[in-house]
Amino acid sequence: MRVIQKYGGSSVATLELIRGVAKRAIATKNEGHEVVVVLSAMKGETDRLIELAKKAHPNPEPRELDNIVATGEQVSIGLFALVCQGFGEKVKSFLGFQAGVKTDDHHGRARITDLDPSRIRTELAKGRIVAVAGFQGIDRHGDLTTLGRGGSDATAVALAIGLKADICEIYTDVDGIYTTDPHICEKARKMERISYEEMLELASLGAKVMEIRSVELGMNYGVAIHVRHAHSQATGTLILKEDSDMEKTPVRGVTLSVNEARITLLKVPDLPGVASRILGLVAKAGIVVDMIIQNRSYNDNPETEKMTDFSFTVPLNDYAQTLELMEAAAQEIGAERIVGDEDIAKVSLVGVGMRNHAGVAALMFQTLAKESINISMISTSEIKISCVIEKKYGELAVRALHDSFELDKAQK
Amino acid sequence: MRVIQKYGGSSVATLELIRGVAKRAIATKNEGHEVVVVLSAMKGETDRLIELAKKAHPNPEPRELDNIVATGEQVSIGLFALVCQGFGEKVKSFLGFQAGVKTDDHHGRARITDLDPSRIRTELAKGRIVAVAGFQGIDRHGDLTTLGRGGSDATAVALAIGLKADICEIYTDVDGIYTTDPHICEKARKMERISYEEMLELASLGAKVMEIRSVELGMNYGVAIHVRHAHSQATGTLILKEDSDMEKTPVRGVTLSVNEARITLLKVPDLPGVASRILGLVAKAGIVVDMIIQNRSYNDNPETEKMTDFSFTVPLNDYAQTLELMEAAAQEIGAERIVGDEDIAKVSLVGVGMRNHAGVAALMFQTLAKESINISMISTSEIKISCVIEKKYGELAVRALHDSFELDKAQK
Repeated sequence: MRVIQKYGGSSVATLELIRGVAKRAIATKNEGHEVVVVLSAMKGETDRLIELAKKAHPNPEPRELDNIVATGEQVSIGLFALVCQGFGEKVKSFLGFQAGVKTDDHHGRARITDLDPSRIRTELAKGRIVAVAGFQGIDRHGDLTTLGRGGSDATAVALAIGLKADICEIYTDVDGIYTTDPHICEKARKMERISYEEMLELASLGAKVMEIRSVELGMNYGVAIHVRHAHSQATGTLILKEDSDMEKTPVRGVTLSVNEARITLLKVPDLPGVASRILGLVAKAGIVVDMIIQNRSYNDNPETEKMTDFSFTVPLNDYAQTLELMEAAAQEIGAERIVGDEDIAKVSLVGVGMRNHAGVAALMFQTLAKESINISMISTSEIKISCVIEKKYGELAVRALHDSFELDKAQK
Repeated sequence: MRVIQKYGGSSVATLELIRGVAKRAIATKNEGHEVVVVLSAMKGETDRLIELAKKAHPNPEPRELDNIVATGEQVSIGLFALVCQGFGEKVKSFLGFQAGVKTDDHHGRARITDLDPSRIRTELAKGRIVAVAGFQGIDRHGDLTTLGRGGSDATAVALAIGLKADICEIYTDVDGIYTTDPHICEKARKMERISYEEMLELASLGAKVMEIRSVELGMNYGVAIHVRHAHSQATGTLILKEDSDMEKTPVRGVTLSVNEARITLLKVPDLPGVASRILGLVAKAGIVVDMIIQNRSYNDNPETEKMTDFSFTVPLNDYAQTLELMEAAAQEIGAERIVGDEDIAKVSLVGVGMRNHAGVAALMFQTLAKESINISMISTSEIKISCVIEKKYGELAVRALHDSFELDKAQK
């Protein structure tokens, strides 16, 4: 088998941890596999470098920042290679550009556009372990780029595609994907398998195990991804194409997000273009909106203008700025009043099985009602239902839903 | 004018110092010049990285070590560029390989084999300051290499050649080349100009201002080098081709080295090949020999084997090992006895004028004799005379010679 192993920053935070990681890579090779290891910077190193750059310039130019930040992974792969050699293993390390990782020129958030892993192939053929610096590549000008946070996952999946690897193992500090956050619900259960689509919804909803773009990339090319613990031998969770082998339960996981705030514009004239005007202002400020709800107009008198209430959620960090923006624009938009609420939580159910199961929403609302939890916003997609509730009920809601949908039991 | 400015590690040790360096580069540009800045790693950073690598492997593979160590300069140029941008200046930084610095593949001590500064030219034409990571390049395999300690000087001189620069400024923490060490002799005088040949002898003798190979390179291509203080406006010392404008004094400088030890093999059979056998053993151990003296055979009886005493000096660090080597080989070589001496100093006079001036050696010996300093070894070259004396007289000898040759007075 050809195996890609990606180790995150917390798995290579110290030389001692790097030794553990090296032993695992060597053990995999000794089982008869070809091994390519993708490494992140040692935990804390990227932050240290960014801080240094910000002391040099409060708003560092992305190209120069990339030069500085890319050194983190460069040191990791060198140390990893040296540790392997200390164990008597043949190994060679490659920087992103040497591994043939070509990207566009959007410094700090580049996307991989092409891959030429010929040097990696040559070294694998010589029986060497190959270590590759994650998170970085080179653009058409010959400049170093970085792929943004979590970019090492993207490197690993891209290499898995380019090298036609049999498996892409993502090693992290959790031992797989759980039905919900084990810190909130002690009945949370590690899943054996999960579909790409479910993982995408779970990742975007706060199960911060793997970077979304990489799951997407893996999905597009059918790369089997195995999320597992860097310092445990237990199998983790396989991310695969949805198949008949998967659990038959409609709901796979419950997630909770408490990092959003809601803004509501009351009594907005219900005219064409009002929504785009509101959201245009927010987008222009670079703020990403999550849920958007526009209530049905509540003025049935044909003589007067129709009015609507318009609500949306934004990341908590952007709440104050968004509120200011809206208040400044209230008159122009014609909103009677702006109200905001930071005390919200979003609880979501995810599962590809929802496509074919009626009644998931009904059971969700019923479960929350039984706990006397009021729902203030609802949004649904094909494989997800999200409800906004009062923040203080967030964890209670997760536990109640986990019980209600019997997620602690694997159903085949 | 096209100006190369090289700043060493002590000149960019902190962000505050980098700001000073950036201001100087910008001021040079504002005088109407094109400016290329070559930077070393922040002081202490290279040592930190080497130490880290040695923790990963006591004897790190040079290729992997280069990957790790090269990050030092990478961070420096990024920070420099950001600081310049903070001052509103247009600037672009280049890693060694982006600046077109091609080297052989001797990792850790690579030599520059070729230079393609086309990207630098393009940016200069756009009115930008260009910052280049010193000390590093890329070999024909596409692997990063480093040029060894002092390698940033080599980068600067190579760029001066490749870009046909008018001047190569080497900024350091001293304000020029002195007639001798000012810490030893308070009458030491900064020289305005000095020839490449003199600088080569002074550098190899311990005036650790600039790397030897770079002076050689500059000499071969006639690059005007200006050694000066990074944080002072005073002019330093110009290193140039010997010309009629230079001071007319035969002796230009006095140097002292106390980092050597002497080993003497007593009563060695004076047979062909004995010297090469002795030095072959030393060379095989990777030890660099400096002075070598073989006394005339002292047995004039044609009936018995001729004998000689054979002495050489090695770096103090290698003394113990060399002594062991010689003692182990004494019988094979046929030496009667091995004696070593760590308590030696080497005092040298340097000056291209010696070529045309008789009497320099005589005045040197006379000066030392007047101070009752015994000379135990002498070696001479065209522009240098060195005497080995007892270590405790080293500084006294320097002061006496400095006085005797009136080096405190500029002679035109």
